[in-house]
Amino acid sequence: MKKILLTLIIFVSSGALLIAQRPSVISPEVHADNSVTFRFSARNAKRVSLDTEILPAPVKMTKDDSGVWTITIPPAKPDIYPYSFWIDSIEVNDPNNTYLFSNEGFKHSLVDIKGDKPLVHSLQNVPHGKLSYHTYNTAQGIAGTLIIYTPAGLDVNGKTKYPVLYLIHGGSDTEETWTKVGKANLIADNLIAQGKVKPMIIVMPYANTGLMMSKAFGTDMMNNIIPFVEANYPVLTDRNNTAIAGFSVGGGATLNIGLMNLEKFAYVCAYAPYTQTPEFKTNFGNWSPDIETYNKKLKLFTIYVGESDQYIEIVNSSIKLFKEKSLNLETMFVPGGHTWMNCKLFLATTLPQLFRE
Amino acid sequence: MKKILLTLIIFVSSGALLIAQRPSVISPEVHADNSVTFRFSARNAKRVSLDTEILPAPVKMTKDDSGVWTITIPPAKPDIYPYSFWIDSIEVNDPNNTYLFSNEGFKHSLVDIKGDKPLVHSLQNVPHGKLSYHTYNTAQGIAGTLIIYTPAGLDVNGKTKYPVLYLIHGGSDTEETWTKVGKANLIADNLIAQGKVKPMIIVMPYANTGLMMSKAFGTDMMNNIIPFVEANYPVLTDRNNTAIAGFSVGGGATLNIGLMNLEKFAYVCAYAPYTQTPEFKTNFGNWSPDIETYNKKLKLFTIYVGESDQYIEIVNSSIKLFKEKSLNLETMFVPGGHTWMNCKLFLATTLPQLFRE
Repeated sequence: MKKILLTLIIFVSSGALLIAQRPSVISPEVHADNSVTFRFSARNAKRVSLDTEILPAPVKMTKDDSGVWTITIPPAKPDIYPYSFWIDSIEVNDPNNTYLFSNEGFKHSLVDIKGDKPLVHSLQNVPHGKLSYHTYNTAQGIAGTLIIYTPAGLDVNGKTKYPVLYLIHGGSDTEETWTKVGKANLIADNLIAQGKVKPMIIVMPYANTGLMMSKAFGTDMMNNIIPFVEANYPVLTDRNNTAIAGFSVGGGATLNIGLMNLEKFAYVCAYAPYTQTPEFKTNFGNWSPDIETYNKKLKLFTIYVGESDQYIEIVNSSIKLFKEKSLNLETMFVPGGHTWMNCKLFLATTLPQLFRE
Repeated sequence: MKKILLTLIIFVSSGALLIAQRPSVISPEVHADNSVTFRFSARNAKRVSLDTEILPAPVKMTKDDSGVWTITIPPAKPDIYPYSFWIDSIEVNDPNNTYLFSNEGFKHSLVDIKGDKPLVHSLQNVPHGKLSYHTYNTAQGIAGTLIIYTPAGLDVNGKTKYPVLYLIHGGSDTEETWTKVGKANLIADNLIAQGKVKPMIIVMPYANTGLMMSKAFGTDMMNNIIPFVEANYPVLTDRNNTAIAGFSVGGGATLNIGLMNLEKFAYVCAYAPYTQTPEFKTNFGNWSPDIETYNKKLKLFTIYVGESDQYIEIVNSSIKLFKEKSLNLETMFVPGGHTWMNCKLFLATTLPQLFRE
């Protein structure tokens, strides 16, 4: 998108300008029919494979005389997919691709198959909101980072107040995963421009995996993050204008934080929630809620999951628990696994349902 | 900083929770004496080296019985340094380190040697400004990205206007390099908190290397970026409150844009400017400026460079050109090369000199 290929010169090492010392390859190359060619230059490697979330298993690549390993995979449904290369027994991201998965535990590359028609997460020529990166004081220190989406045309005088969604990433993700991988800002831009979604503020905190599995992140959310947002942004602070959503371990945190703080949240939306955590057990192990109050207060309570999600059994057991308690839970099962392709779909399904009254 | 090591479980593949399948290693590990241990797990590799901007050349690592390659390097001056591993003939970043160099041409990891005393770029307990990520309409399409630093305590009613610095990255860098590698926001936070720097707005556009070497980026700056900023932020728009600075190819662009648009910029600060470009030749090849006007209008005109910068001859020839024309140019030569360690120093030297009258 924003990369111009310089075939003769490559910039390396802190902006240094050098004549290319190894074959310059284009990877990934998305073709007009949505097939994709991946390339990796490694003359001395014995075996190179491509590992994508497009194909069900890694596939071997073939080396040509110049030492470049190549594979072209069949047309795929337009979307943004993670991938990596396995060089002998080492996994690497694609050195020729700028677009990386934001994560602390792995560093996959991403291939964006745009297709002919704009998708709900595509960069379109509509008014764009902005993302603000904040450093805020967490209970654990001063290193917390928070990304806040504000919609296009935000009233700079602060007279108009907006509803707010707290949106939590998955295990080992970072505060940037919902925007750089999940395109939450572009999804909101597009759906707001279409009039399908109310202009809202979306708050994406850094949520450490370890802390999310205990009570610590929820405490940080209630005591630090929400007060910071309410002090610094024109947000409506009542429960009818406050939602929480999250994926995977962040989906588990969403259930813990949302359902335990009904005085703050009227919308609780969990995507493939991972709930095998001490905190979930503490909250829901011997839970005897006042169901009538819950069903009255929860304007939206959803669990969405991919049918082939590796945690499908854990998710189903959580669904069972809430259904047995007769909570008004809406579920959605879609094809696919525990992926950010599905996260984008889940978010685009949730946003139009929020703050509608 | 924000990473809690989970020794038994590792999150892989889109938030999946799996028992670790290979040795979990800590890398980099900065010791109390500022020495650093780097580790890389690769049982089948024949040769693994560490390539850092701390040491003058790559150094071999040693494999232990568990297949982990290790090296400990001597104490280094506290700073943030790029590094990578060479696995046989393949360069990779550190899979165990979240902190990556933001660049389109390479993906080095970064090691942050903090030292005992806070540095000018350290995260300190001072009021923090924020970074806003914008999508704006470039002359080339809708994909331009712009990061804008606003200082802590920004008057949200927009009644207070601030001076503005346009800050340009180096070749193949991204709009995030000045913040994620160069820590421009934290440098500004710290120096503003100390009263050494006037609260200002700092604008960091994405500047494509190819476009920066031609007139295109300058046109984008004058016709799109500056009007966008002036329409959306409380900035002072007169030349006495407008500065431009940049590194490497962005330093060359700074000279082109700054000196050719004196009606807009009173401060022009180039860091290791790369000037072997068609645009520089067009502007300065047969340049016969009205020196008196230039020297009167330029409140600050600086070129800073590392003594062992690989472009030192190019930089010296630019310095010679401007000195021969009798422009009031201030130069600074510091130890080190064409690095972002020096970029931080250059920026921290420039900021207190801006908007002082």
